[in-house]
Amino acid sequence: MFEKLALIGCGLMGGSFALAARQAKLLGSVSGYSRSPASAQKAMELGIVDAVAATAADCVRGADLVLLAVPVASTQATLSSLLPQLDPQALVMDVGSTKADVVRAAEQALGERIAQFMPAHPICGKEVAGIEHADAKLYAGQQVILTPLPVHSAAQVERARALWAALGCQVKTLEPQLHDEALAAVSHFPHLLAFAFMDSLMQQADGERYLALAGPGFRDSTRIAAGDPDLWADALLANATQVIAQSQRLQQSLHALEELLHRGDRAALRQAIEQVSQRRSAWRMGQG
Amino acid sequence: MFEKLALIGCGLMGGSFALAARQAKLLGSVSGYSRSPASAQKAMELGIVDAVAATAADCVRGADLVLLAVPVASTQATLSSLLPQLDPQALVMDVGSTKADVVRAAEQALGERIAQFMPAHPICGKEVAGIEHADAKLYAGQQVILTPLPVHSAAQVERARALWAALGCQVKTLEPQLHDEALAAVSHFPHLLAFAFMDSLMQQADGERYLALAGPGFRDSTRIAAGDPDLWADALLANATQVIAQSQRLQQSLHALEELLHRGDRAALRQAIEQVSQRRSAWRMGQG
Repeated sequence: MFEKLALIGCGLMGGSFALAARQAKLLGSVSGYSRSPASAQKAMELGIVDAVAATAADCVRGADLVLLAVPVASTQATLSSLLPQLDPQALVMDVGSTKADVVRAAEQALGERIAQFMPAHPICGKEVAGIEHADAKLYAGQQVILTPLPVHSAAQVERARALWAALGCQVKTLEPQLHDEALAAVSHFPHLLAFAFMDSLMQQADGERYLALAGPGFRDSTRIAAGDPDLWADALLANATQVIAQSQRLQQSLHALEELLHRGDRAALRQAIEQVSQRRSAWRMGQG
Repeated sequence: MFEKLALIGCGLMGGSFALAARQAKLLGSVSGYSRSPASAQKAMELGIVDAVAATAADCVRGADLVLLAVPVASTQATLSSLLPQLDPQALVMDVGSTKADVVRAAEQALGERIAQFMPAHPICGKEVAGIEHADAKLYAGQQVILTPLPVHSAAQVERARALWAALGCQVKTLEPQLHDEALAAVSHFPHLLAFAFMDSLMQQADGERYLALAGPGFRDSTRIAAGDPDLWADALLANATQVIAQSQRLQQSLHALEELLHRGDRAALRQAIEQVSQRRSAWRMGQG
């Protein structure tokens, strides 16, 4: 139970967190701040926040829980701006999809108070941005990765874990660098790939005719290509080295399959498909 | 209304067709033939067929509707085997995901009786094979592409169109070559890409750990990687030239995005993502 949540950033992720935490009866009150006054106003109208603060520092005054739900590139500036009013006992978390850069930014901004900050990444989202799409169920049943630092005590990790668990999340911990490697493989690069695939269709003279014939397989495999441009430009750039490494690996696998098509080697192609198909059939979210 | 459906091939696609056509009260009786006696037996047990035939030729005797739901590579041999018993007035259709090769095979097998055969491709499926997964709703609301030939009369096209429309399908017509080009772009190559992506994860030392962290974006974008190995090996080989051409185009788009990551050009990356994201958001199945 927290007395006051300071929601820094009134968008899909932050708004959904506030709704879910309210529904779980974890919060006394919620104060919201957004760089866009219209978003903060909308959060008020939707009953997601109880009050709108004029600055991030005003927002965190008296808060024992701070959720930073801003673009990862804004982490350092935002934390620096709210630090003067930040209660030394408050728990601060983010929701960014990269962690090594967020940890560096938080260390720069918070200095010796870095232990107040627990880096967090809920692995979920929607293909629509904005607080008007906030959803109390967005986090339910999803995985949240915490990337605690050596300065964090077990009690600090447990406090953050319990909060996400109370929202119905499956909480794991990982080192920031390992988090970024893994997420490059299963989230960031798949987005780059989906963007590239849509682009390759749009570049073709007959692309629009092709799109009119696409079915359920296309629908599902390209859903993530509708992702938010700002969020994904930031995530891909923040994790660029790993994303490019994954792209090289994908191209190696693609070339190997192309070679089987060139050779018309049905037996080898069938076997290759069978291996990946069996693995994908056995995969379960949250278990692997 | 048809007196008798001969279902040649008792699998997911054929079984679902028979169930849907029965539900739409389009069929008198259904006779089934399968190369695998167990599948035909299962079709009987599930009430999908009324009788099991020992051969494809026995199956089509007296049938006014024949659905060929066998691997595309078996088209010519199967049509040749049933031709002696095929009623000259019967409508024969397939459900294969490539059409130029199916048309060639049908022309070889049927000769001057080719006009009896209307090539058809319902753009749907499931990631599970076998008649035990047959589903009366599989085709409802989905697109079906007919690729009529110059020998077909308007009345023949209409007869096939009306049948699929009665199952709730949206029916389009296209030349076989244009069908294969379009389907390479929006179905066959996306499958190759999903197979390659799963393979690239499985090849990595930490791949299993990465898979355990994958979320809803990964789940949806790789759903098609669980596809049936036989079906997709055939489809990819039958349309290999077009599939490889699409793969080259994807790699060009991927390289262009990689270059933006290398350069750290956020503005250009954001703009590229915005263009594809807007197009994908606007896309509607069956409309483009």
